[in-house]
Amino acid sequence: MEIDFDKMLGLVPAVIQDAADGELLMVGFMNREALEMTLRTRFVTFYSRTREMLWTKGESSGNRLKVLAAWTDCDRDTVVLRVEVMGAGKVCHTGSRSCFTQELPLGEAMSAGEARR
Amino acid sequence: MEIDFDKMLGLVPAVIQDAADGELLMVGFMNREALEMTLRTRFVTFYSRTREMLWTKGESSGNRLKVLAAWTDCDRDTVVLRVEVMGAGKVCHTGSRSCFTQELPLGEAMSAGEARR
Repeated sequence: MEIDFDKMLGLVPAVIQDAADGELLMVGFMNREALEMTLRTRFVTFYSRTREMLWTKGESSGNRLKVLAAWTDCDRDTVVLRVEVMGAGKVCHTGSRSCFTQELPLGEAMSAGEARR
Repeated sequence: MEIDFDKMLGLVPAVIQDAADGELLMVGFMNREALEMTLRTRFVTFYSRTREMLWTKGESSGNRLKVLAAWTDCDRDTVVLRVEVMGAGKVCHTGSRSCFTQELPLGEAMSAGEARR
Protein backbone atom coordinates (compact mmCIF):
# COMPACT_ATOMS: atom_id res chain seq x y z
CA MET A 1 0.00 0.00 0.00
CA GLU A 2 1.77 3.14 -1.19
CA ILE A 3 0.96 6.22 0.90
CA ASP A 4 1.01 9.60 -0.87
CA PHE A 5 3.49 11.81 0.98
CA ASP A 6 3.90 14.24 -1.92
CA LYS A 7 0.87 16.44 -1.31
CA MET A 8 2.14 18.06 1.85
CA LEU A 9 5.85 18.50 2.44
CA GLY A 10 6.44 14.77 2.86
CA LEU A 11 3.89 14.42 5.65
CA VAL A 12 0.46 12.91 6.18
CA PRO A 13 -1.93 13.60 9.08
CA ALA A 14 -2.23 10.66 11.48
CA VAL A 15 -5.53 10.54 13.35
CA ILE A 16 -5.39 8.67 16.64
CA GLN A 17 -8.62 7.03 17.73
CA ASP A 18 -9.31 4.99 20.84
CA ALA A 19 -9.98 1.45 19.61
CA ALA A 20 -12.27 0.73 22.53
CA ASP A 21 -14.78 3.58 22.35
CA GLY A 22 -13.97 5.49 19.14
CA GLU A 23 -12.95 8.69 20.94
CA LEU A 24 -10.65 10.96 18.94
CA LEU A 25 -7.51 11.39 21.01
CA MET A 26 -5.10 13.46 18.92
CA VAL A 27 -3.81 14.24 15.45
CA GLY A 28 -0.12 14.26 14.62
CA PHE A 29 1.96 14.10 11.46
CA MET A 30 4.07 11.30 10.03
CA ASN A 31 6.71 11.21 7.36
CA ARG A 32 7.47 7.93 5.62
CA GLU A 33 9.98 6.86 8.26
CA ALA A 34 7.58 7.59 11.16
CA LEU A 35 4.77 5.64 9.51
CA GLU A 36 6.98 2.68 8.74
CA MET A 37 8.26 2.63 12.32
CA THR A 38 4.70 2.89 13.65
CA LEU A 39 3.43 -0.03 11.56
CA ARG A 40 6.49 -2.16 12.24
CA THR A 41 6.75 -1.63 16.02
CA ARG A 42 2.99 -1.15 16.61
CA PHE A 43 3.70 1.90 18.76
CA VAL A 44 2.78 5.35 17.40
CA THR A 45 5.77 7.45 16.28
CA PHE A 46 5.18 10.93 14.87
CA TYR A 47 7.35 13.41 13.02
CA SER A 48 7.55 16.66 14.96
CA ARG A 49 7.25 19.63 12.61
CA THR A 50 8.62 22.05 15.19
CA ARG A 51 11.53 19.90 16.41
CA GLU A 52 12.10 18.29 12.99
CA MET A 53 12.63 14.84 14.42
CA LEU A 54 10.81 11.56 15.06
CA TRP A 55 9.19 11.14 18.46
CA THR A 56 7.56 8.05 19.85
CA LYS A 57 4.44 9.20 21.67
CA GLY A 58 4.63 8.45 25.39
CA GLU A 59 8.30 7.56 25.37
CA SER A 60 8.89 9.61 28.51
CA SER A 61 5.37 9.70 30.02
CA GLY A 62 4.68 5.99 29.56
CA ASN A 63 1.40 6.76 27.79
CA ARG A 64 2.42 4.93 24.64
CA LEU A 65 -0.14 4.31 21.94
CA LYS A 66 -0.30 0.65 20.95
CA VAL A 67 -1.64 0.23 17.42
CA LEU A 68 -4.41 -2.35 17.07
CA ALA A 69 -5.42 -1.42 13.51
CA ALA A 70 -4.31 1.04 10.83
CA TRP A 71 -6.23 2.41 7.87
CA THR A 72 -5.69 4.81 5.01
CA ASP A 73 -8.27 6.62 2.93
CA CYS A 74 -9.31 6.63 -0.71
CA ASP A 75 -6.61 9.18 -1.61
CA ARG A 76 -3.96 7.44 0.53
CA ASP A 77 -2.94 10.80 2.00
CA THR A 78 -4.17 10.35 5.59
CA VAL A 79 -3.87 7.50 8.10
CA VAL A 80 -6.07 6.50 11.01
CA LEU A 81 -4.60 4.49 13.86
CA ARG A 82 -6.88 2.71 16.30
CA VAL A 83 -4.97 2.40 19.52
CA GLU A 84 -4.92 1.21 23.07
CA VAL A 85 -3.51 3.87 25.40
CA MET A 86 -0.90 2.44 27.72
CA GLY A 87 0.15 3.75 31.12
CA ALA A 88 -2.16 6.19 32.87
CA GLY A 89 -4.15 6.72 29.69
CA LYS A 90 -3.60 10.48 29.48
CA VAL A 91 -2.80 11.23 25.87
CA CYS A 92 -2.67 15.03 26.04
CA HIS A 93 0.28 16.85 27.61
CA THR A 94 -2.29 18.95 29.49
CA GLY A 95 -3.23 15.82 31.45
CA SER A 96 -6.54 15.13 29.78
CA ARG A 97 -7.39 11.93 27.97
CA SER A 98 -7.94 13.58 24.58
CA CYS A 99 -6.31 16.67 23.09
CA PHE A 100 -9.71 17.80 21.78
CA THR A 101 -11.11 19.63 24.78
CA GLN A 102 -11.83 23.07 23.38
CA GLU A 103 -15.24 23.50 21.78
CA LEU A 104 -15.66 26.00 18.93
CA PRO A 105 -18.79 28.14 18.69
CA LEU A 106 -21.18 27.43 15.84
CA GLY A 107 -23.45 29.85 14.01
CA GLU A 108 -27.19 29.65 14.07
CA ALA A 109 -28.41 26.42 12.50
CA MET A 110 -29.66 26.95 8.95
CA SER A 111 -31.49 24.74 6.54
CA ALA A 112 -29.44 23.37 3.63
CA GLY A 113 -31.37 25.70 1.35
CA GLU A 114 -30.47 28.76 3.40
CA ALA A 115 -26.82 27.73 3.55
CA ARG A 116 -26.66 27.52 -0.25
CA ARG A 117 -27.66 31.15 -0.71
CA MET B 1 -10.70 30.94 19.87
CA GLU B 2 -7.74 31.64 17.57
CA ILE B 3 -6.80 28.68 15.36
CA ASP B 4 -3.12 28.34 14.39
CA PHE B 5 -2.95 28.32 10.60
CA ASP B 6 0.73 29.23 10.47
CA LYS B 7 2.25 25.78 10.98
CA MET B 8 1.22 24.38 7.64
CA LEU B 9 0.82 26.63 4.63
CA GLY B 10 -2.28 28.32 6.05
CA LEU B 11 -4.16 25.05 6.51
CA VAL B 12 -5.31 22.80 9.35
CA PRO B 13 -6.50 19.20 9.09
CA ALA B 14 -10.24 18.83 9.66
CA VAL B 15 -11.27 15.43 10.95
CA ILE B 16 -14.86 14.48 10.19
CA GLN B 17 -16.50 12.13 12.68
CA ASP B 18 -20.02 10.74 12.65
CA ALA B 19 -21.75 12.31 15.64
CA ALA B 20 -24.02 9.30 16.05
CA ASP B 21 -21.55 6.42 16.28
CA GLY B 22 -18.08 8.01 16.35
CA GLU B 23 -17.00 6.53 13.01
CA LEU B 24 -14.21 8.44 11.27
CA LEU B 25 -15.56 9.46 7.89
CA MET B 26 -12.86 11.55 6.23
CA VAL B 27 -10.09 14.09 6.73
CA GLY B 28 -9.87 17.27 4.69
CA PHE B 29 -8.08 20.59 5.00
CA MET B 30 -9.41 24.02 5.85
CA ASN B 31 -7.93 27.46 5.51
CA ARG B 32 -9.28 30.28 7.66
CA GLU B 33 -12.06 31.11 5.22
CA ALA B 34 -13.22 27.48 4.96
CA LEU B 35 -13.31 27.07 8.73
CA GLU B 36 -15.20 30.31 9.25
CA MET B 37 -17.73 29.32 6.60
CA THR B 38 -18.10 25.86 8.15
CA LEU B 39 -18.75 27.21 11.64
CA ARG B 40 -21.06 29.97 10.41
CA THR B 41 -23.20 27.90 8.03
CA ARG B 42 -22.89 24.60 9.96
CA PHE B 43 -22.13 22.74 6.73
CA VAL B 44 -18.59 21.44 6.17
CA THR B 45 -16.56 23.42 3.61
CA PHE B 46 -12.99 22.39 2.85
CA TYR B 47 -10.12 24.00 0.99
CA SER B 48 -9.03 21.81 -1.89
CA ARG B 49 -5.25 21.69 -2.10
CA THR B 50 -5.29 20.34 -5.65
CA ARG B 51 -7.97 22.68 -7.05
CA GLU B 52 -6.92 25.61 -4.80
CA MET B 53 -10.49 26.58 -4.01
CA LEU B 54 -13.17 26.19 -1.35
CA TRP B 55 -15.59 23.31 -1.77
CA THR B 56 -18.66 22.57 0.27
CA LYS B 57 -18.72 18.83 0.78
CA GLY B 58 -21.77 17.23 -0.83
CA GLU B 59 -22.77 20.31 -2.79
CA SER B 60 -23.38 18.24 -5.91
CA SER B 61 -24.00 14.78 -4.40
CA GLY B 62 -26.36 15.98 -1.69
CA ASN B 63 -24.32 14.22 0.98
CA ARG B 64 -23.67 17.40 2.92
CA LEU B 65 -22.11 17.21 6.35
CA LYS B 66 -24.14 19.07 8.95
CA VAL B 67 -21.99 20.16 11.89
CA LEU B 68 -23.40 19.33 15.31
CA ALA B 69 -20.25 20.14 17.31
CA ALA B 70 -16.74 21.45 16.60
CA TRP B 71 -13.59 21.10 18.66
CA THR B 72 -9.96 22.11 18.45
CA ASP B 73 -6.98 20.60 20.23
CA CYS B 74 -4.46 21.81 22.79
CA ASP B 75 -2.23 23.29 20.06
CA ARG B 76 -5.20 24.76 18.15
CA ASP B 77 -3.78 23.39 14.90
CA THR B 78 -6.39 20.72 14.13
CA VAL B 79 -10.18 20.70 14.19
CA VAL B 80 -12.66 17.90 14.71
CA LEU B 81 -16.18 18.22 13.39
CA ARG B 82 -18.91 15.92 14.58
CA VAL B 83 -21.46 15.71 11.84
CA GLU B 84 -24.71 14.29 10.64
CA VAL B 85 -24.41 13.01 7.07
CA MET B 86 -27.27 14.26 4.91
CA GLY B 87 -28.65 12.66 1.74
CA ALA B 88 -27.80 9.03 1.07
CA GLY B 89 -25.09 9.07 3.74
CA LYS B 90 -22.23 8.11 1.43
CA VAL B 91 -19.34 10.37 2.34
CA CYS B 92 -16.65 8.89 0.10
CA HIS B 93 -16.63 9.49 -3.65
CA THR B 94 -16.07 5.74 -4.04
CA GLY B 95 -19.61 5.19 -2.73
CA SER B 96 -18.71 3.93 0.72
CA ARG B 97 -19.81 5.56 3.94
CA SER B 98 -16.27 6.34 5.15
CA CYS B 99 -13.13 7.14 3.15
CA PHE B 100 -11.12 4.87 5.46
CA THR B 101 -11.63 1.49 3.87
CA GLN B 102 -8.07 0.34 3.19
CA GLU B 103 -6.37 -1.45 6.05
CA LEU B 104 -2.59 -1.22 6.44
CA PRO B 105 -0.56 -4.26 7.49
CA LEU B 106 1.05 -4.21 10.92
CA GLY B 107 4.26 -5.85 12.07
CA GLU B 108 4.41 -8.55 14.68
CA ALA B 109 3.17 -7.30 18.04
CA MET B 110 6.01 -6.47 20.43
CA SER B 111 6.07 -5.59 24.08
CA ALA B 112 6.80 -1.98 24.97
CA GLY B 113 10.21 -3.10 26.21
CA GLU B 114 11.09 -4.76 22.93
CA ALA B 115 9.93 -1.76 20.95
CA ARG B 116 12.27 0.52 22.93
CA ARG B 117 15.36 -1.45 21.91
